[in-house]
Amino acid sequence: MDAERFQKQLDFIIEIDKAKQVLRNTLLADASRCENDAEHMWHMAVGAIVLSEYTDGKKPDMLKVLKIILLHDVIEIYSGDTFAYDAKGQVGKADREREAAEKLFARLPEDQAAEYKSLWDEFEDGVTNEARFALAMDSFMPILHNYITKGQQWRRFDISSKQVLTKNERIAKSSGFLWKYIQAIVEDSVKKGYLKE
Amino acid sequence: MDAERFQKQLDFIIEIDKAKQVLRNTLLADASRCENDAEHMWHMAVGAIVLSEYTDGKKPDMLKVLKIILLHDVIEIYSGDTFAYDAKGQVGKADREREAAEKLFARLPEDQAAEYKSLWDEFEDGVTNEARFALAMDSFMPILHNYITKGQQWRRFDISSKQVLTKNERIAKSSGFLWKYIQAIVEDSVKKGYLKE
Repeated sequence: MDAERFQKQLDFIIEIDKAKQVLRNTLLADASRCENDAEHMWHMAVGAIVLSEYTDGKKPDMLKVLKIILLHDVIEIYSGDTFAYDAKGQVGKADREREAAEKLFARLPEDQAAEYKSLWDEFEDGVTNEARFALAMDSFMPILHNYITKGQQWRRFDISSKQVLTKNERIAKSSGFLWKYIQAIVEDSVKKGYLKE
Repeated sequence: MDAERFQKQLDFIIEIDKAKQVLRNTLLADASRCENDAEHMWHMAVGAIVLSEYTDGKKPDMLKVLKIILLHDVIEIYSGDTFAYDAKGQVGKADREREAAEKLFARLPEDQAAEYKSLWDEFEDGVTNEARFALAMDSFMPILHNYITKGQQWRRFDISSKQVLTKNERIAKSSGFLWKYIQAIVEDSVKKGYLKE
C-alpha cells in the first residue's frame, strides 16, 4: 500500500469536515436555524434517491448523480456560499469557485483529484443527464424548504416569484413533473403571502 | 402521475430533515461542537467514496453502499442516537431501532418503503460486502475524529483502547488495510494519552 496516497486521502476527508460549518440561507424545515453545506448535500442526496423516477428521458446513472451531489458544495469551504438571489455575489462566482475546486481537490491523489474535479465541472456545465438532475435537486430542495417555512427567507431577502421562477427554471431541463410542482407551490406561495408577485 | 405517491415522498423528505437535529457524541474535526446525524451520513458517504479501493475481496456495489450510508441513521429521528460505548443504551437498541425503521419508512410508497427497509436491514445484518463496508466506515469515521481531536470524547467518557478495538473490530471484516491503520492510531492514542490502555 502507498502510505503517501492514503495520507492524502485522509487529509482530504478531514479538510472537508469544514463543510459542516459553511452556512447557507436555507432554513431547516422547522425554521429553527439555517442549514449548513454538509446537511444540504446529505438531504439533497436522499431527495435525489427518492425522486429519481421523475427525471425525463434516459435515466441518469445514480452513482454518478450521488457522487456529484455529495461533492458539489465542498469547494465552498474556500469560496463561501453564494446566495442564489445575490446578484452582486454572482459576479466572479464561477472563477472564485473554480479556483476553490482546483485548490481543494489537489489535496487528493492525482487520479481522484482529476475524477472529482471532472464531476464538479460536469455539475457546473449542466449538460449531462446526471448534472441536470443534480442541478434540479439543488434548486428543488431550497424551494421546498422555503415553502414549508412560509417563505421566511424569501420575505427576509425581498424575493419575488419571478426571481424564483427565472433562477430555478433549470429544474425543467431534468424533470417536467418536478418543475410543474415547483410552479404550483410558487403560485400558492404568492397567494398565501409567502412570496411577492 | 400519482399525486398520493408524490405527497408521500415529499412527506418523507421533509420528515428526515429532523436528522439535522439528532446529535451524536462525535466532535467536529476542530472540536468546536458535536456533529449531527445528517452531517455524519454525508461525511461517511464521502469517506466511503474516497476509500473504497481498500475493501478486501469482491468490490462492493458503491450505489448500494451510498444508499445504505445515506439512510442508515435516519431512523434515529425516532429512536435517538445510542453512543457506541453506552452498555446500558445497547440493551433493547435493536428492537427500538427496528420499530423506528418500520415507522419511518412506512411514510413512503410501498415499493420504496420495502426497498429502504431492506437496505437498512442489510446494514444491521452486516453480511453482504456492501453492508460490511458501510459498517466499517461507521466505525472508521468516529475513531478518526476522536484521534484528531486528541481523544476529547474518549477521555470524557473514560473509554479504553480495549473497548475501542473490541467495538470496532468489524472494520477488519471489510478492510484489513483500514483496520491496520485504526489499530495503529489507537496505539498512538494510548501513547499520547488520548485514550487509556
